[in-house]
Amino acid sequence: MNILVTNDDGIMAPGIFILKKELEKKYNVYVVAPDVERSATGHAITIRNPLWAKKIFLNDEFLGYAVNGTPADCVKLGLEAIYKDIKFDIIISGINKGPNLGTDLLYSGTVSGALEGSLNGYPSIAISSANYQNPNYKTAAKFILDFLENNSIINMPEFSALNINVPNVDYSEIRGYKITRQSKRRYKDYFEPRKDPYGNTYYWMLGEIIEDDNAEDSDYFVLKENYVSITPIKSFLTDYDYMNKLIKNIEEENNGFKG
Amino acid sequence: MNILVTNDDGIMAPGIFILKKELEKKYNVYVVAPDVERSATGHAITIRNPLWAKKIFLNDEFLGYAVNGTPADCVKLGLEAIYKDIKFDIIISGINKGPNLGTDLLYSGTVSGALEGSLNGYPSIAISSANYQNPNYKTAAKFILDFLENNSIINMPEFSALNINVPNVDYSEIRGYKITRQSKRRYKDYFEPRKDPYGNTYYWMLGEIIEDDNAEDSDYFVLKENYVSITPIKSFLTDYDYMNKLIKNIEEENNGFKG
Repeated sequence: MNILVTNDDGIMAPGIFILKKELEKKYNVYVVAPDVERSATGHAITIRNPLWAKKIFLNDEFLGYAVNGTPADCVKLGLEAIYKDIKFDIIISGINKGPNLGTDLLYSGTVSGALEGSLNGYPSIAISSANYQNPNYKTAAKFILDFLENNSIINMPEFSALNINVPNVDYSEIRGYKITRQSKRRYKDYFEPRKDPYGNTYYWMLGEIIEDDNAEDSDYFVLKENYVSITPIKSFLTDYDYMNKLIKNIEEENNGFKG
Repeated sequence: MNILVTNDDGIMAPGIFILKKELEKKYNVYVVAPDVERSATGHAITIRNPLWAKKIFLNDEFLGYAVNGTPADCVKLGLEAIYKDIKFDIIISGINKGPNLGTDLLYSGTVSGALEGSLNGYPSIAISSANYQNPNYKTAAKFILDFLENNSIINMPEFSALNINVPNVDYSEIRGYKITRQSKRRYKDYFEPRKDPYGNTYYWMLGEIIEDDNAEDSDYFVLKENYVSITPIKSFLTDYDYMNKLIKNIEEENNGFKG
């Protein structure tokens, strides 16, 4: 099996290195990742500048290609240029430093790496370790290797992907995995104003986490109970409930507004 | 009614200026927009650097605040810092130069401006003019003003938004509007390799549009027939069909894999 690996913490991040080493026990692994950290870049792509891909070696061992772009750029360039001749079976983005839960999915470069893979027709997985300070990447790496062996990920529907979050514990302490939905976990933003040396105000963005979506199928909820959270996601945002409501309203009102 | 306006083409783009002028005929308009073009930045936010907000004047008239960030940054900063004391009724992102259809929604900074508004609890609209070369912003501006007068947008569900695309014709030629779904319109990427002056290969990202999702409720389809396309969208990506399939599989297989 050929696996394309990317991330948003950059090619020098420990998470991608540990993931590569673990996956190489069973599979062929090809790394194309951002040259520097691109956290919170969402599904950004680089359209006004060209992209370079630079070979990176670690102790004389080839690690992969570093690209001056986002995770979505790396997936596109990996599939359509750098490794155009490889037939990939799956795309994996991670292991991210910190969880990707609730509205993180919109901001996360890691998740967008996986969604980009799915848009290109490949089974794709985003994987994160649920701790910012001292993530246990080994647990997450071991989980994904086992998961690939025990699940027919090839049957993933077109344009869908999996967003996997692994608790920050030893592998033996994981209680299993649960299929979850993206929760409404989100942030209450606030900005800390400061003065620059020229007297201008500038702002640091900060946020408090809001967790009011406690249910057995919520992504962050199962994680706290030491289960791996596996959320099936897709790239299409249509709100069908709202859509049907609007269509019904228009039929009923028939207000003559033609636009 | 107080309206917060942003875009992804930058505060100096004609689309945002024409939108502001039109909305000011009826409402109070506050502009917070990126200092330079931020097209295709998706839902990126700025977490590693601080943000500055600079007042911009056009012929001595105050236009709005320019921020060194993305559309999502502008909405956050506008709501929580710059205009913290204003009670906003709606957030509008645009008028974008070019359509936002199908998978554009993932890459678009314009759409993410609206989604960020909806995540903050406000009715939010992304609006685009469906032409890259010579967009008719006046038609789009007039449409949105009429739309706001004739529709109770205040009833938008929490965390939802509207993605509106306006045909590039005179206002009199618009046949009306249709409620649509985000289509599967997408791109087949390819990369054009070149050599830089130092002998290194670099790549320009290009893409061909794939339009194989022709149906009466598809976003790009109605636009071609000179209808305005209004797609209700939301910020939650869970693929419930796939989720239920996975849950069923696990129950049936009971394969002993605990993760």
